[in-house]
Amino acid sequence: MNTKFQQLVKLFQKLPGVGPRQAARFVIALLDQPEENLKELGESINHLKRDVRFCDECFNVSSNHSCSICHDTKRDRNKLMIVEKITDLESVEKTGLYKGLYHVLGGAINPLDKINPASLRIKELEKRLDTMLALRQAQGDNLELIVATNPNTPGETTALYLRDILANKKGVSITRLGRGLSSGSNLEYADETTLKHALEYRK
Amino acid sequence: MNTKFQQLVKLFQKLPGVGPRQAARFVIALLDQPEENLKELGESINHLKRDVRFCDECFNVSSNHSCSICHDTKRDRNKLMIVEKITDLESVEKTGLYKGLYHVLGGAINPLDKINPASLRIKELEKRLDTMLALRQAQGDNLELIVATNPNTPGETTALYLRDILANKKGVSITRLGRGLSSGSNLEYADETTLKHALEYRK
Amino acid sequence: MNTKFQQLVKLFQKLPGVGPRQAARFVIALLDQPEENLKELGESINHLKRDVRFCDECFNVSSNHSCSICHDTKRDRNKLMIVEKITDLESVEKTGLYKGLYHVLGGAINPLDKINPASLRIKELEKRLDTMLALRQAQGDNLELIVATNPNTPGETTALYLRDILANKKGVSITRLGRGLSSGSNLEYADETTLKHALEYRK
Amino acid sequence: MNTKFQQLVKLFQKLPGVGPRQAARFVIALLDQPEENLKELGESINHLKRDVRFCDECFNVSSNHSCSICHDTKRDRNKLMIVEKITDLESVEKTGLYKGLYHVLGGAINPLDKINPASLRIKELEKRLDTMLALRQAQGDNLELIVATNPNTPGETTALYLRDILANKKGVSITRLGRGLSSGSNLEYADETTLKHALEYRK
Repeated sequence: MNTKFQQLVKLFQKLPGVGPRQAARFVIALLDQPEENLKELGESINHLKRDVRFCDECFNVSSNHSCSICHDTKRDRNKLMIVEKITDLESVEKTGLYKGLYHVLGGAINPLDKINPASLRIKELEKRLDTMLALRQAQGDNLELIVATNPNTPGETTALYLRDILANKKGVSITRLGRGLSSGSNLEYADETTLKHALEYRK
Repeated sequence: MNTKFQQLVKLFQKLPGVGPRQAARFVIALLDQPEENLKELGESINHLKRDVRFCDECFNVSSNHSCSICHDTKRDRNKLMIVEKITDLESVEKTGLYKGLYHVLGGAINPLDKINPASLRIKELEKRLDTMLALRQAQGDNLELIVATNPNTPGETTALYLRDILANKKGVSITRLGRGLSSGSNLEYADETTLKHALEYRK
Repeated sequence: MNTKFQQLVKLFQKLPGVGPRQAARFVIALLDQPEENLKELGESINHLKRDVRFCDECFNVSSNHSCSICHDTKRDRNKLMIVEKITDLESVEKTGLYKGLYHVLGGAINPLDKINPASLRIKELEKRLDTMLALRQAQGDNLELIVATNPNTPGETTALYLRDILANKKGVSITRLGRGLSSGSNLEYADETTLKHALEYRK
Repeated sequence: MNTKFQQLVKLFQKLPGVGPRQAARFVIALLDQPEENLKELGESINHLKRDVRFCDECFNVSSNHSCSICHDTKRDRNKLMIVEKITDLESVEKTGLYKGLYHVLGGAINPLDKINPASLRIKELEKRLDTMLALRQAQGDNLELIVATNPNTPGETTALYLRDILANKKGVSITRLGRGLSSGSNLEYADETTLKHALEYRK
């Protein structure tokens, strides 16, 4: 095997979910593309950190200090959805159903992977909340924090932690995304945890 | 092929979810069982309608006029869960999380299969509710009707229909099982309908 | 729960691949069927052993001493396919591609399940072969034994055992069903064993 | 959304099997990697065509005119396996079961995708065969061509085409990888085409 070939296969394997076989197919596919495509892809990766940055407020990707969502005056500033990753934010945006703001934590608390509260953007969230709340006091509006971390152990741990540290903020109500039966599922075949949540979240 | 063999294969295919191949395996398996097992199974099926009946109140299977759940004085009589089928009732019972009563509709409204409100035990539900409410008036307790029909078109149609006809009963509150993200699922990969429900059922 | 109901659920669970939930659905479905259907099914199961027997030659199901395949003078008597179960025979018959005779072993050698050569119809196979070969000597035709046991450990063990004990019969050639890539599969994703067989069985 | 971000997401989508969501995750993962990793990956892609080339003989990836397999004097020069893609070659190599040479066609005949014999390295295969056969004449060895194109329509078409144009070469025998039951599969559930091949490839 060619060593430069193998080297690039190794580099592609650092991307999330890419195994040795897919990585090899990527390199073979690149060999079939014209020289200028390789140049364009190579340069874009080279300059990625120079060209793309994160929003100072919500940590979404951005070309400026403030991202297009934080900028948008039509968004509902009484709702702040807390997500783990930018890809979660994009999934919610794609539905077009949510019109509030976001806060990207950068992950979820997971002692096994050595991700603790300090590794996440929780300090930044607290600071941001204080600023938002100070500005709002006159208006008397309530701010809804929608904790949209994932329904797995790290996501639940993070949700509990956030409730703990934010519970005593005035003018803030904390909600969690609904749990229960998914569309097209069947009561008869639902597992116990799902039925438990379906009972808890009934309304 | 032996005709008696094929005949029994055909009869087994009338059972739900049994195709010709599984039916044939059933018959071959029976041929391997001792004579007395076949007698026992044959007789039980023969006398099924004589031996098993439905509860007069909730339409669960029963050996008497009233089934073991309706009989049980420890069940919470302020909660009535409306399910489509006995198998749904059994799934919920298996979790041990629900301590109220049930009402088995016998299916869900589905014009395509010619199942309309009159084919279901809705009249019986209304009569039962009236009796329950009359008995309770003195106590002033609220009765929660948990509509646990399936999260598909017939189930939703039935839920809407029940809300319509029961909305004006006094002392009754109607809830619906929670909808949203299932355990271990991932926000990033959730489909739009699930995200929509997760937002609606947030709390 | 009704005990007669639960009893019939238990009996249905003795059928292959039927769990408690499917068994319950069977009984509930039967309760919805008219009385005469239950009678018909019950009686057929009751009299199964009286009405259905196995072919004396190949052990396929039959109404007489000899089954319809063994009877059929148009079948190629130079080919004998050895299968584990009647359901395997039926799968091959359904394709219409095989025109020879069969021999149903009644299973495959599996020490874990205490199935050894003596529990299978191997003695019967040897006797049948001797008769067939005696009749054929004048003709000088070759008899092909197609060992069509399953491509798993018990099936392979049985195939090896049959080769061992039948290897020295004159006028008999033993073949095994082809192994390798399945239609629509992909070389790139084939596992090592499949590639090994694809190389071995190439032609 | 940041345009440079979206631009790189678009470029990643040109890789085989990468949709918009995975492409976005790639870019977000790159943003989390240190600057020097991005430099290394970017430069490797930039210089890929300069650093990696194809073997002049078999069209495997190579750093020189001749690849490590063609170079290896221990490989069996009486066997030549014809594969569609380099990834197929790598799958076979990974098993360690094949010790002959390869020829990478670069795809399979597929009129729908406008891939015809002229787009593949078939001319090169013919030339190579002529040279190999000329060199071997003295020895009298037979050369086995193992056509290992995929078991789907384009692969079968290519195999038929190769048989047609190579049938009259002296000293060449053409084989095809075995077809039939895969390991751990079950006769009872095998589809008709698989049973047909299992019968054809029996031995």
